[in-house]
Amino acid sequence: MTHNLSPTIALTQQLIRRQSITPDDADCQEMLGQRLAEIGFIAETMRFADVDNLWLRRGKREPLFVFAGHTDVVPTGPADKWASPPFNADIVDGLLYGRGAADMKGSIAAMVTACERFVERYPDHRGSIAFLLTSDEEGPATDGTVKVIETLQTRQENIDWCVVGEPTSSQRVGDVVKNGRRGSLNGYLTVKGKQGHIAYPHLAENPIHRLAPALTALCAEIWDQGNDDFPPTSFQVSNLNSGTGATNVIPGTVEMVFNFRYSTEVTHEQLAQRTEMILQQHGLHYDLKWVLSGKPFRTAGGALLTAVQQAISDITGYKTELSTSGGTSDGRFIAPTGAQVIELGPLNATIHQIDECVSIADLDTLSSIYEALLVKLLT
Amino acid sequence: MTHNLSPTIALTQQLIRRQSITPDDADCQEMLGQRLAEIGFIAETMRFADVDNLWLRRGKREPLFVFAGHTDVVPTGPADKWASPPFNADIVDGLLYGRGAADMKGSIAAMVTACERFVERYPDHRGSIAFLLTSDEEGPATDGTVKVIETLQTRQENIDWCVVGEPTSSQRVGDVVKNGRRGSLNGYLTVKGKQGHIAYPHLAENPIHRLAPALTALCAEIWDQGNDDFPPTSFQVSNLNSGTGATNVIPGTVEMVFNFRYSTEVTHEQLAQRTEMILQQHGLHYDLKWVLSGKPFRTAGGALLTAVQQAISDITGYKTELSTSGGTSDGRFIAPTGAQVIELGPLNATIHQIDECVSIADLDTLSSIYEALLVKLLT
Ligand SMILES: [Zn+2]
Ligand SMILES: [Zn+2]
Repeated sequence: MTHNLSPTIALTQQLIRRQSITPDDADCQEMLGQRLAEIGFIAETMRFADVDNLWLRRGKREPLFVFAGHTDVVPTGPADKWASPPFNADIVDGLLYGRGAADMKGSIAAMVTACERFVERYPDHRGSIAFLLTSDEEGPATDGTVKVIETLQTRQENIDWCVVGEPTSSQRVGDVVKNGRRGSLNGYLTVKGKQGHIAYPHLAENPIHRLAPALTALCAEIWDQGNDDFPPTSFQVSNLNSGTGATNVIPGTVEMVFNFRYSTEVTHEQLAQRTEMILQQHGLHYDLKWVLSGKPFRTAGGALLTAVQQAISDITGYKTELSTSGGTSDGRFIAPTGAQVIELGPLNATIHQIDECVSIADLDTLSSIYEALLVKLLT
Repeated sequence: MTHNLSPTIALTQQLIRRQSITPDDADCQEMLGQRLAEIGFIAETMRFADVDNLWLRRGKREPLFVFAGHTDVVPTGPADKWASPPFNADIVDGLLYGRGAADMKGSIAAMVTACERFVERYPDHRGSIAFLLTSDEEGPATDGTVKVIETLQTRQENIDWCVVGEPTSSQRVGDVVKNGRRGSLNGYLTVKGKQGHIAYPHLAENPIHRLAPALTALCAEIWDQGNDDFPPTSFQVSNLNSGTGATNVIPGTVEMVFNFRYSTEVTHEQLAQRTEMILQQHGLHYDLKWVLSGKPFRTAGGALLTAVQQAISDITGYKTELSTSGGTSDGRFIAPTGAQVIELGPLNATIHQIDECVSIADLDTLSSIYEALLVKLLT
């Protein structure tokens, strides 16, 4: 059955059949490195802690175009719930099933085959092409892209344009690309009161009662209006816990975890300062720890964005939509270097779910878009 | 060493040495029944489920004066933390140590010896005297006083005056009596939202954010102004829990447990109605379960209160203070029958703690007060 499959689909199947659950790469990167070595890419492994990363570059000239992606996948969940085994890579009715099919082994395969066709047509293309592959995007993301970028920065190897293969499409392949991502900032708040018996409230201080009006103010606060590329910054409480379990005890503390998804109109320092001002205006005694998951980035214009829009239009006939919504991605580590970063990949409807799948026609289309992009930027 | 001890102190020691942790009575009631039978009390055991209760009555006439108390005690906590073993009943520097010394085996002993002296002086006193003893006051309190009262009500055996031996005194024995108790009403609230990913807040509905302004309103609400006998009704949240533990998930529900300690100026029905009105005004989707722990009661005047005030003044020389503060007691089950109920016992500083103790001089004084009370009401 496989003799009719395109090289992109065949490579996607090969990748899916390697059970590369974070941070185990299961030799996906070695296989990709060998394949790309055949068309002139020089491989450099960059292992940090237990994470395999691979930097592959073809050419020494500028500008540098980079395909970025991850070979790791999230766990399958109960494998017997899948219609076909999650590492089989079965094709049914034009859909290729398997963990990582859409996120993002299909994108990586499409990138590789796009390069193969492009290099065959333009062996002496201008600039350079590189692949930045990691195996911990779905994990803590501390020993992957962020460390590779640090290494590149140290030796002043600068990325001009970067396409990340995350599944960004909504209804049709290429209908949505991400030209940025919101920042993500977590706060871990402990409001302090004084524990006591509920029959003697004047001897205690209920931290829940102290928090309530401050929390109301935080929920009502308008942090910014967003901008053309970003929706307004959002504040959300994820966890709130207080109490001893007993019904006759006023608790001594309340713990609250909250998150900002924020636009480029504010900084994480400003959000922290404004949050603490609200807490202080309400007279709270508190501890507050901040953890920055990622700063926002955006690629508002430039040659990459133009080329992406044109390539999608040329191949599919429709106009792509720019978006900055959704979760974070490794783009957050690449954009701060000054690189233009666009995320473009297949439909994201099934990612991280049982029966994750991707349309084989979409993957071929995606590979054509990636190829057209190389033509526009490097010829 | 024991030959110098008063009968009240000796009986208190006998009771403490029986390890009657709720609901185990450890035959305290049988011992008390035998002793009171010698001065004409007729014993009637009333066992419900695993709880021993004892109803003892001397005489058939009205009015009926009742001493109410519990023979059960709370656990000792780590026994090796006690200066002397918690069931030894050691006396050191005028203080009798042991679990239950103050709450409330000392009171029970003082009641028994008061009766013994009173009956010797007034064998043909008017009315009747009874003891209502239970062994689950410190526990769920479902098979104790409440069931005994139901039994008495069924046969129309009505209590006119009742003294409960709970430790009500603050600095000196008799300085404070309880002429009522606040009601206690618990609410178990679940506010419903819609779970979702924190990056897509528009697809979710955060129940914490919905609750915050409603909770602020509940905390700010003035439920009543209290009255001469009661402080204003208080609202306190005891437990508040929401969240999956993950920092990127908007939770689907929030659970809140809260309590009203309420005065006689409102009813539990009114509190429930006003709470739900506030929740509905804030557009919450919720489930709310109410559990009434006890209605408020008060003995604003009458022969019993007057006699208690005079007896304390006669014996101690000072004026007692009326209070309705503190936790609930079994008085809540007795007062609804129409009985006048006053709680009067020793200092409560050490109850439920390591090294619980009572002054032996105070117990003798307390016994004299109880005796004076019988003289005032039944002669
Ligand atoms: Zn991904
Ligand atoms: Zn008690």
